[in-house]
Amino acid sequence: MEFLGKTMVHECLKQEMSADPWIPIPEEIRELYIQAGRPRPLYRARRLEKYLKLKKVRLYYKREDLSPTGSHKVNTALAQAYYAAKEGKTALVTETGAGQWGSALAYAASIMGLKCVVFWVRAVYDWKTERRTLIKLLGAEVHASPSKETNIGRTLLTQNSNHQGSLGIAVSEGLEYAEKHGDSVYCLGSVLNHVLIHQSVIGLETIKQFELADDDPDLIVGCLGGGSNFGGLALPFAGEVLQKKRECEFLASQSQAAPNLVEGEYRYDFGDVAEHTPLLKMYTLGHKTDMVPIKADGLRYHAAAPLISALRHHNIVKAVAYPADEKAIFEAAKIFLQTEGWLIAPESSYAVRAGIDEALKAEKAGQEKVICMNISGHGFLDLVAYKEKLGL
Amino acid sequence: MEFLGKTMVHECLKQEMSADPWIPIPEEIRELYIQAGRPRPLYRARRLEKYLKLKKVRLYYKREDLSPTGSHKVNTALAQAYYAAKEGKTALVTETGAGQWGSALAYAASIMGLKCVVFWVRAVYDWKTERRTLIKLLGAEVHASPSKETNIGRTLLTQNSNHQGSLGIAVSEGLEYAEKHGDSVYCLGSVLNHVLIHQSVIGLETIKQFELADDDPDLIVGCLGGGSNFGGLALPFAGEVLQKKRECEFLASQSQAAPNLVEGEYRYDFGDVAEHTPLLKMYTLGHKTDMVPIKADGLRYHAAAPLISALRHHNIVKAVAYPADEKAIFEAAKIFLQTEGWLIAPESSYAVRAGIDEALKAEKAGQEKVICMNISGHGFLDLVAYKEKLGL
Repeated sequence: MEFLGKTMVHECLKQEMSADPWIPIPEEIRELYIQAGRPRPLYRARRLEKYLKLKKVRLYYKREDLSPTGSHKVNTALAQAYYAAKEGKTALVTETGAGQWGSALAYAASIMGLKCVVFWVRAVYDWKTERRTLIKLLGAEVHASPSKETNIGRTLLTQNSNHQGSLGIAVSEGLEYAEKHGDSVYCLGSVLNHVLIHQSVIGLETIKQFELADDDPDLIVGCLGGGSNFGGLALPFAGEVLQKKRECEFLASQSQAAPNLVEGEYRYDFGDVAEHTPLLKMYTLGHKTDMVPIKADGLRYHAAAPLISALRHHNIVKAVAYPADEKAIFEAAKIFLQTEGWLIAPESSYAVRAGIDEALKAEKAGQEKVICMNISGHGFLDLVAYKEKLGL
Repeated sequence: MEFLGKTMVHECLKQEMSADPWIPIPEEIRELYIQAGRPRPLYRARRLEKYLKLKKVRLYYKREDLSPTGSHKVNTALAQAYYAAKEGKTALVTETGAGQWGSALAYAASIMGLKCVVFWVRAVYDWKTERRTLIKLLGAEVHASPSKETNIGRTLLTQNSNHQGSLGIAVSEGLEYAEKHGDSVYCLGSVLNHVLIHQSVIGLETIKQFELADDDPDLIVGCLGGGSNFGGLALPFAGEVLQKKRECEFLASQSQAAPNLVEGEYRYDFGDVAEHTPLLKMYTLGHKTDMVPIKADGLRYHAAAPLISALRHHNIVKAVAYPADEKAIFEAAKIFLQTEGWLIAPESSYAVRAGIDEALKAEKAGQEKVICMNISGHGFLDLVAYKEKLGL
């Protein structure tokens, strides 16, 4: 705890441990959300419904892709940047794998006038040149990890000057950097309670939007790696389910490359390979599990957030895992683009895939059903993956 | 006219010649606009104002970047696709240079269930692999031009099997293809009256949004190549200026690579190199002028739309041209990203550059001024240009 107190935002730690049912969103953060394009629209997928010949099933989707850096990650990045600035910190430090979280934090730092330092797994840093340009353009300092900025980085580079890095190493570097620079804090982009709390703005908005549409979802579908976009949409609805204010089911769509909710064990585990984090009670595949590469890199995580894992344990959240070749996933993304017109991230395509499958199942059973899918991000920086997977 | 009648959408030709002050937008097109994210927001650039230390000047920007294919081009693409389908056509044919227009038309065709054939200048087709993937993903047939699909293409390829093509050649191929396939029509993405009429939805929305904001622009700024995004925002305001219902100035921001409004002659000229189009009265640099390459490829056009040229001739529209090295342009885009948080297209950065310059000028003169800039597109597919121009 002393280490955490030194390296993390205090308000975030307080929220992490809070038992309060509601934590107010400060006026300043709400203004930052407006600047970032909130509220984001909820769409009825009428053209997709028509394509699928649905008569009894209605499909909706929430547009988190309409975000400055292309994903829902900005929701927590802005909150963390705001609290860090308020606590007198001048720099935000983090690790990133796929790069979505690194760019979201770089954006938030830029908007708040803070410095940002990103340690980016070298294996990804080297080829994602466009997202790297975006992070630099946002004014952040970005290092391929392992880097020469830290002791652990220097040690690893001595052993192998072309070390490809890992998320665990990048976390270690970030924490070492944050500990050594008293004016900086370490920020996390998923899994933890405070991150999911910040993301819950997605679901809070969606509840109001369904009221305006005079409709109600029977099923919430989202993709799930660590759980931040899924939790963001699902938790406010789940809260009302637990209070018996509404009936609604929840389905997490995963990859068989990392089916933590489907095949994981519910037990205490570390959040990172290097065992820096506290132990968290989660559905986990084991923090040292190797996972095959997939294009939806944001879903490649060994465990699901404690909040989601608890809901899974009580059978409130269900889960499905799709084959790691991702053929069905990219096919769903293509159908979505050609009907609804929006190019979505590979990760979000898991939500659409599961949404389509559930819709067809209900339709076949003659069951009336309203399904809401979360579109966690856009695919403008993922066209290389589309080209490869669909042979274009 | 016979040739045009055979290859173009009749409703568009009718609108092209119309003297009606108002042409209603059919309900179906309005629904397509909603699907494509309209109305698009008008933002007050408070953070940019603060960065520029503005006290007397207020800055606004219209968000045409929040578009399925990343630019305002979808506004006319959807209208043209709708009318084509209504006239029983089953395929839309076009040329594209930078690729924005080709992807917008591919999107509209996909949404309307039509076939789409794009002839894309080979010099650009070869390196813009990601936009090419997007066009294919939208289900369009895309050919590097010159292609083997047409007589003129085959002839040119016999002379040089690696012919790099030009916009003029691509237009010729498209027209030949459309003429030979009776079920198809040729669609244009800028310059013509009906295109600017379709784009005027931008300005019509913006007038209402300024009413809601209880403010009024003194200056409208947009980038200008052929004039479709500029006209889209400016024309509804200009109409009210001509009717003496409001006072407002208009500034077109151009590149010195193609300063048609700044240095062009006001006379009849062709719209294309190959002299296929009717003669149009425009400010023109001459339809055979060579233009140096710039990153804001959408601004590289030899003449300004007849409607904009007429307003320039009557001194209602003014124009400025920035150096072709684009340093000042990308610097403005970076400032915009780091303050407002949105990554904009190189073309749109000309509007922001001119908006910033005009704001600083007014501020220095102690003049109160409200400036509205048009953000015609996003920059997620232009990060390579950002990297090169800003040395990231």
